Amino acid sequence: MTSSPGTEAEIAPHALPGHGDVVEAAARLEGLAVATPVLEAEGLNAVVGGRVLVKCEMLQRTGSFKFRGAYNRISRLSADERRRGVIAYSSGNHAQGVAAAAALIGAPATIVMPRDAPAVKLAGTRRLGAEVVLYDRASESREEIGERLMADKGATLVRPYDDFHVIAGQGTVGLELGRQLAEIGVTPDAVLCPCGGGGLIAGVALALERALPGVPLWAVEPQGFDDTARSLALGRRVANREGGTSICDALVIPIPGELTFALNAKRLAGGLAVDDAEVRRAMALSLRHLKVVAEPGGAVALAALIAGRFDGRGKTVAVIASGGNVDPALLAEALAAD
Amino acid sequence: MTSSPGTEAEIAPHALPGHGDVVEAAARLEGLAVATPVLEAEGLNAVVGGRVLVKCEMLQRTGSFKFRGAYNRISRLSADERRRGVIAYSSGNHAQGVAAAAALIGAPATIVMPRDAPAVKLAGTRRLGAEVVLYDRASESREEIGERLMADKGATLVRPYDDFHVIAGQGTVGLELGRQLAEIGVTPDAVLCPCGGGGLIAGVALALERALPGVPLWAVEPQGFDDTARSLALGRRVANREGGTSICDALVIPIPGELTFALNAKRLAGGLAVDDAEVRRAMALSLRHLKVVAEPGGAVALAALIAGRFDGRGKTVAVIASGGNVDPALLAEALAAD
Repeated sequence: MTSSPGTEAEIAPHALPGHGDVVEAAARLEGLAVATPVLEAEGLNAVVGGRVLVKCEMLQRTGSFKFRGAYNRISRLSADERRRGVIAYSSGNHAQGVAAAAALIGAPATIVMPRDAPAVKLAGTRRLGAEVVLYDRASESREEIGERLMADKGATLVRPYDDFHVIAGQGTVGLELGRQLAEIGVTPDAVLCPCGGGGLIAGVALALERALPGVPLWAVEPQGFDDTARSLALGRRVANREGGTSICDALVIPIPGELTFALNAKRLAGGLAVDDAEVRRAMALSLRHLKVVAEPGGAVALAALIAGRFDGRGKTVAVIASGGNVDPALLAEALAAD
Repeated sequence: MTSSPGTEAEIAPHALPGHGDVVEAAARLEGLAVATPVLEAEGLNAVVGGRVLVKCEMLQRTGSFKFRGAYNRISRLSADERRRGVIAYSSGNHAQGVAAAAALIGAPATIVMPRDAPAVKLAGTRRLGAEVVLYDRASESREEIGERLMADKGATLVRPYDDFHVIAGQGTVGLELGRQLAEIGVTPDAVLCPCGGGGLIAGVALALERALPGVPLWAVEPQGFDDTARSLALGRRVANREGGTSICDALVIPIPGELTFALNAKRLAGGLAVDDAEVRRAMALSLRHLKVVAEPGGAVALAALIAGRFDGRGKTVAVIASGGNVDPALLAEALAAD
């Protein structure tokens, strides 16, 4: 690992990454991240009445895009910081991304996870060699637990989305997508991307402003967690109302990130929301036609297209499917929706 | 489409393809067949206790490798033959491969399918524009139906495996696999491949004799349909006993092909068999760890490795997963085996 311009110490706290930072992240991830395929299926095109091109990040290392940002962030730590290790809060995909990246880099990782996280994500995180500290969402503060761990170990917190290098790393999904679409000579009418904290879509927006200038990029969220859609409409960050529920565990966050929203407010076409039934159907059609497993949060963009929340008839639409870590019972439930 | 050396008229009835014919098929399929990814998952490696690299042909056009051979065959028909169309017998994957290839080439396709073929395969074949003629396995002869159709229309029969160009086309799976393993610097200890009529593994064997010389290639079949394993052991083609059942609809055939066995007898290390429970578990672990849908017949090679029928501990094994066209109910059943 060579040291590079833009190491952590040189990044101001509120600096925003640009296109060049995504390009630099891609060089760092070369040979480590999977260049995930863009898949198309005639059966899915027929359902939508247009052409659907799906960027398959469930086929990424650890089963979601999160490895990209985590590796881009952790690989910039100094030798001393690496030794002291990293810590992350996550219900699952970020946890696995951090665990895998830390293991490659040789930094110990501690992950603070809710006790009710999907079993497949808990098991995946442990298998990657991370120490998992469980907490109760209702009665405990993960921040308190995390701060104690940071104080004890001197570990570095790896934020899931509101981080310069994490955003730049996730943006490599967009660089690849742009290149893959160019290879088949396609300029899509729109790009749809799942959105939780907004790190993936912010990075993708940076990548696509050169690769696909002028092509609208839409954020897709679960109903009840459409904070980015509402924030985009209002021009300022607003939180989700309390008490919402969704099967999309990967996208359940309280409010858009500061850095991510600063990027997204200027670049996104807007936000769309999908309900649980629409997500289940998208999961089923992903299995049937694309032969890939989309977890609920990973399937929302495809769901928006299939459910007609975004009208894809007669259009070519690129969709990002962001992850595939789902417990078998929930996948079986989705299959029943086919 | 340019005419090429080795058009149909020049192939003697019992001529066997060689490595060069696979290379030529690859050139013909360039930009039409998906160069399917080779996937690896730490969780799957942990289950096997070795390194498992899976060539994912369920991500191929039409959801299985069959498009490759069908296109390589149909693209060699004369203008007149194309106009008169093609016909195929198939329970599903070959049907979809022929339908998709014929549609691309502009030849009408008629597919004779058993009435009890998986619904997903029937629907997929019709969606691709083929005419489907159903028959009853118990009371009707598909050959009689097919011969009547051939006489009426002057259509050309596209055989599922016992055909020079079909075998060469399927071999492009092996060419890609060899190249992809070379890119990551891996020489596997063995390659495992599903085997029905033997067309895929015969083509793969041709490809790998240059790409991976000396690496043993094993055929994997369903229990009760291990005709290739027994034929390899005896040195001559023997049929399956009557009355066997298997969930691997894609691999249920009576006896190895003539051309395929002539190739396989000289090149394969041997044959392995797996039972339905082992297949279901492999399907479940494919979903869980690789995030891809393997149909029963497509999962047998992975099943042999997971179940320890082939001991992969401490080894690097390349596995071909040949298809992913499975009805949701059977997939849900497999999920319950996880």
